[in-house]
Amino acid sequence: MDHELLNGLLRPKSIAIIGASAKPGKIGYTVIDNLIKDGYPGKIYPINPEATEILGLKVYKNIGDVPGDVDAAVMTIPAKIVAQELIECGKKKVKGIILITSGFSEVGRKDMEDELVAIARQYGMRILGPNIVGTLSNSDKLNASFAPCLPLPGKVSLASQSGALLIALDASTYVRRVGFDKLISNGNMCDVNFTDLVTWLGVDDNTSCIALYIEGFKDGRSFIEAAQKVEKPIVALKAGVSSHGAAAAASHTGSLAGAVKIYGAAFKQAGVIQATDLDDLFDRVLALSIQPPMQGDNLLVLTNGGGVGVLATDAAERCGLPLHFAPEDVQTELRKHMPEFGSAKNPVDMTGMAGNEWYYETTHFAIGHPWTHGLVVLYCETAMTNPQQIAEAIKRAIDEADVKGKPVTVSFVGGERSDKAIQWLVEQGIPAFGAPDRAVNAIATLREYTRLRESIKDPAVSCGDVDSAAARKLIAKARAEKRSTLTEIEAKQIFELYGLPTTKTSLATSEDEAVKMADATGYPVVMKIVSPDIIHKSDAGGVKVSIKDAAAVRDAFKTILTNAKSYKVDADIHGVAIQEMAPWGTEVILGSVNDPGFGPTQMFGLGGIFVEVLKDVTFRVAPVSRTMAEQMLSEIRGAPMLDGVRGEAPRDKAALVDALCKFSSLIVDLGDEIAETDANPVIVYEKGKGLKVVDARIILKNK
Amino acid sequence: MDHELLNGLLRPKSIAIIGASAKPGKIGYTVIDNLIKDGYPGKIYPINPEATEILGLKVYKNIGDVPGDVDAAVMTIPAKIVAQELIECGKKKVKGIILITSGFSEVGRKDMEDELVAIARQYGMRILGPNIVGTLSNSDKLNASFAPCLPLPGKVSLASQSGALLIALDASTYVRRVGFDKLISNGNMCDVNFTDLVTWLGVDDNTSCIALYIEGFKDGRSFIEAAQKVEKPIVALKAGVSSHGAAAAASHTGSLAGAVKIYGAAFKQAGVIQATDLDDLFDRVLALSIQPPMQGDNLLVLTNGGGVGVLATDAAERCGLPLHFAPEDVQTELRKHMPEFGSAKNPVDMTGMAGNEWYYETTHFAIGHPWTHGLVVLYCETAMTNPQQIAEAIKRAIDEADVKGKPVTVSFVGGERSDKAIQWLVEQGIPAFGAPDRAVNAIATLREYTRLRESIKDPAVSCGDVDSAAARKLIAKARAEKRSTLTEIEAKQIFELYGLPTTKTSLATSEDEAVKMADATGYPVVMKIVSPDIIHKSDAGGVKVSIKDAAAVRDAFKTILTNAKSYKVDADIHGVAIQEMAPWGTEVILGSVNDPGFGPTQMFGLGGIFVEVLKDVTFRVAPVSRTMAEQMLSEIRGAPMLDGVRGEAPRDKAALVDALCKFSSLIVDLGDEIAETDANPVIVYEKGKGLKVVDARIILKNK
Repeated sequence: MDHELLNGLLRPKSIAIIGASAKPGKIGYTVIDNLIKDGYPGKIYPINPEATEILGLKVYKNIGDVPGDVDAAVMTIPAKIVAQELIECGKKKVKGIILITSGFSEVGRKDMEDELVAIARQYGMRILGPNIVGTLSNSDKLNASFAPCLPLPGKVSLASQSGALLIALDASTYVRRVGFDKLISNGNMCDVNFTDLVTWLGVDDNTSCIALYIEGFKDGRSFIEAAQKVEKPIVALKAGVSSHGAAAAASHTGSLAGAVKIYGAAFKQAGVIQATDLDDLFDRVLALSIQPPMQGDNLLVLTNGGGVGVLATDAAERCGLPLHFAPEDVQTELRKHMPEFGSAKNPVDMTGMAGNEWYYETTHFAIGHPWTHGLVVLYCETAMTNPQQIAEAIKRAIDEADVKGKPVTVSFVGGERSDKAIQWLVEQGIPAFGAPDRAVNAIATLREYTRLRESIKDPAVSCGDVDSAAARKLIAKARAEKRSTLTEIEAKQIFELYGLPTTKTSLATSEDEAVKMADATGYPVVMKIVSPDIIHKSDAGGVKVSIKDAAAVRDAFKTILTNAKSYKVDADIHGVAIQEMAPWGTEVILGSVNDPGFGPTQMFGLGGIFVEVLKDVTFRVAPVSRTMAEQMLSEIRGAPMLDGVRGEAPRDKAALVDALCKFSSLIVDLGDEIAETDANPVIVYEKGKGLKVVDARIILKNK
Repeated sequence: MDHELLNGLLRPKSIAIIGASAKPGKIGYTVIDNLIKDGYPGKIYPINPEATEILGLKVYKNIGDVPGDVDAAVMTIPAKIVAQELIECGKKKVKGIILITSGFSEVGRKDMEDELVAIARQYGMRILGPNIVGTLSNSDKLNASFAPCLPLPGKVSLASQSGALLIALDASTYVRRVGFDKLISNGNMCDVNFTDLVTWLGVDDNTSCIALYIEGFKDGRSFIEAAQKVEKPIVALKAGVSSHGAAAAASHTGSLAGAVKIYGAAFKQAGVIQATDLDDLFDRVLALSIQPPMQGDNLLVLTNGGGVGVLATDAAERCGLPLHFAPEDVQTELRKHMPEFGSAKNPVDMTGMAGNEWYYETTHFAIGHPWTHGLVVLYCETAMTNPQQIAEAIKRAIDEADVKGKPVTVSFVGGERSDKAIQWLVEQGIPAFGAPDRAVNAIATLREYTRLRESIKDPAVSCGDVDSAAARKLIAKARAEKRSTLTEIEAKQIFELYGLPTTKTSLATSEDEAVKMADATGYPVVMKIVSPDIIHKSDAGGVKVSIKDAAAVRDAFKTILTNAKSYKVDADIHGVAIQEMAPWGTEVILGSVNDPGFGPTQMFGLGGIFVEVLKDVTFRVAPVSRTMAEQMLSEIRGAPMLDGVRGEAPRDKAALVDALCKFSSLIVDLGDEIAETDANPVIVYEKGKGLKVVDARIILKNK
């Protein structure tokens, strides 16, 4: 049903233009002109209470007057009258509204958008926008926008939060020679958002790769789920990754730009490739839209110039796809098409003596050999060769090898002739570029895609049999006491409920009770004053460690109380906490925030200087899968610490992965209550010996 | 004199071609054809014992037969007869040899190159090559190469170790629209090297920016000195930064590619900008060749699209030139040329309503305001504006503002019309690009240049009054004993001679001596067995720490000797070391290697996990200046550790800078003797309290 509505919105068979104008220069004129000029084959119904004919089309006073069905209505009318016209559209059973009009949340009027969405829901319509350029589709000859032309035809579809950028990129497709099918301006996203668009484009026959220009999500969590289900590559350019940039993004479309690390994590989890800039976005989508993903790490590089070979080698390492020498049998065959001073290793340097035949033979053999998972063919223009003929040799070799599922990218460094050959290769479906590192980056993207999809295969771990009612009771008690923070003991109880081992902590209100608890805990113990009035417990002489027996417990109990009272005469003292003393191990930190764009989001890092000085932490939107938890352990810079350094035994990474999954369940399950969480430090022991949460903090949401 | 020889080589007034050929396709033909075709105005003398006329020119049998002076001789003859022809050139007083011929060190025949250099020295000639394409100069209409054409004219000059790449880049200058004056292929660099070329290009009137494609230096140290003296920007693309790539480079021109970190450090010290890839190289040299350096950090970004503004903001942060909000008076003025929903902060978003006049007014005001140090103007193609007119408005604003010393770069995102406007802007001397991040990267390069030059202003610190003879005596003693490693005591003596404080260590051979030494050292002391036969001293029970008085010294002496003897009955025991026990502080490491390309090169890092797990170290080619030593302290990731973390006092950074400079003097001064050095750990105390080298190791060069 929803899919049908989006079909009506993005591939309409009939369109009304509410705010149609007979005046050239007006958007209500341009949209009609564009529809006609670009050959839209459906019905076009201009709506304007005062005109009778625009660009040869009959004009209707109201959308209700239109004789046939209307799939989509473009609105170019002032913001204040959009709501009333929307109701008319609802009555007419319009499926989708292309709301070009601005003056909504981007100028602080989110309330007006809420009203529109309520109307749309009531009548079963979807709204694209407001504050957009419109939507374009080459395969439907649809230019329902004020962008001047349809883009260069191709298989990439773009959704962009910036309208100005969409118009500029539209024109630039001809200069960049990267073909697009759909360009969808989604502006303020009051209704149709990135989640809807990736889902719909995911099953669109004319789209083989999805490009996104994102300033900020409001629906990050659902986007991740939707993107995971899409079985074609998605590439995102997230703008506003600097703190300064984030501020600019917020003022630009009224959306909240999240932290770089959280977006980076979310894209990984969604199986979405992140582009670094516009050039990178175009290079990646070109490759992804016309070449198959790369199924293994064996990249072979062919070249006629050692220099570009070295540059490609450097680029491959930078792109996470380092070159390996080809096996001996491959080298033997390759050596047939090069002089003695060539190199059959990898990069394969055929030298400047390489002509059409060597390029043909070498490409044909290399792509066909089972060792090769992907091929980059480099060419430096020489006086003795003709770039077009080299290009044709490469193309013929690929065609005749007739191998499925192995990508090829190409770089030609040279002048006008090379430039023309590059263009020709792209038209033949082979991504070709003017610099070797770009060809490598493009093929690395095809590899990144398979790696990303592989890494999101396993489902997030569910929390299993948890007494969440007990956890909620603890939270309710704190709320009843007007507290926004749980005590350490309460926080640890919740952690224990979700299966996370904590150091045992109990509250003793008498010496006898203290001894009983210490006996039960097992020696040595730590004892701490518990008082809402004493924050700096150590300064108050309120902490004693390494307490080894009952007598020492009694001594410590007295001393702590005496110290506390002399520190603050009128302190409200709850008692003394008796805590298991965790033996030494590797300190790590688990934490969470409730991100405005993504909801419960967890952090992992090593404790001490790693988190404090090096900010060596990593994020994932919760819940995580086992694979993602393992990724978190391996992607921090201090990762070797967990494998044991300076002769230490490896730490219990399995227990840590398990803890990350359980922690994940906790913050998701109680996501409506918890704002932030810290488990710091968590001490991880030798392999097989588990871990302990030594200190825990849970901060509640404001309600 | 040397300058005159290079003038003769690279800007010859007359050229002989030894190996001239009448056969099209032969290099000896192509070079002559190129000289004529590209309009070389000097004399051309083909040399060939068997021909009489080539391309209308009289052919001489021998260079000795040529009637006039010959500045340069191009050689295209087989490698084995180059030496004899070189002698003929010497007799003729030829200044420079353009040795195209290959078959020398790149195929293992370094000996043949050595012979040629000896001949050249004898006759006072310079050799470019061998294994090169030749040399080209637009301002001299000189194409003394087999590259098919002179490059697009401009002010960049390139020296490239890869000939194939040089040919390809030559053609690509027309596609990339970046103009060059000279293209110099330097191949194996048997004689003329990068040092010579940057020095010569540094005073060449037709070169405003120097580009280098480098695979490996043999003369790193002299290159740094030469580059520091050049008063124009130098941009280097170093190929072979991956380990795999380094191997490929070595096989390519027989040069040794050094470690990434050492090259990175050397470029910083040389004041040379490092490009990451070919596109980056072209973007940087375009900006540096036609715009002035940027003298401060205040970058203003103007745009008609919020999206590209955000992308530019992100890029500015990535490039180390983060945006700051413009001051209020600037914002007030800027607000005059934008609608209410625009933004006068930074980036300055004039919105899609910006036309020619707003671009003119805003650019004119912004470049003229004293706050602005540099300006990036961004434009997204819109239906309402004409890119060429916008370009002209920008150009007119800059011209009329008539401000000196402030750079401007531009980005136009759009189609064919924008592309043409970009081309026009570049022709007008304004670097313009198709993506906002490229415009930001270009202006950031102009800022990087002034920062780099600033940072190399102060001279390296000299070692001052050092008794280096005493140091050499210690080394000589070790060599006499056939040792390649100094003992810890010897190494510390050398460190002390160069002014580096070490923990006092003395060798006691009796109990009484031990007590005397411990009394002199001051308690507590550390005692260690000294025996070439006992490497793992602790395992042998040969180490005692925290020894607090004379009695304990006597006990320890006995115990250590007993333990040592029972550990290894026949151990050769020199005695027991009595060592000052350094109090706790922050551990750092100072080290050095004698790099094949750069000579004595020093390393600095924090000790412990920072160096072992995080490899958080930084390098400089010695000797360093105070500024460079300070840079070393600040550029490691763990830098905050030195400022005091977790409530600790700041460490004595001044003492550390001093130590880095003294260490630098040590390794340079004794660079002919020392292969590697380690001072690990060095303990740094609180500010004002200095540091101590606790353990030291010096490994001698093989001689």
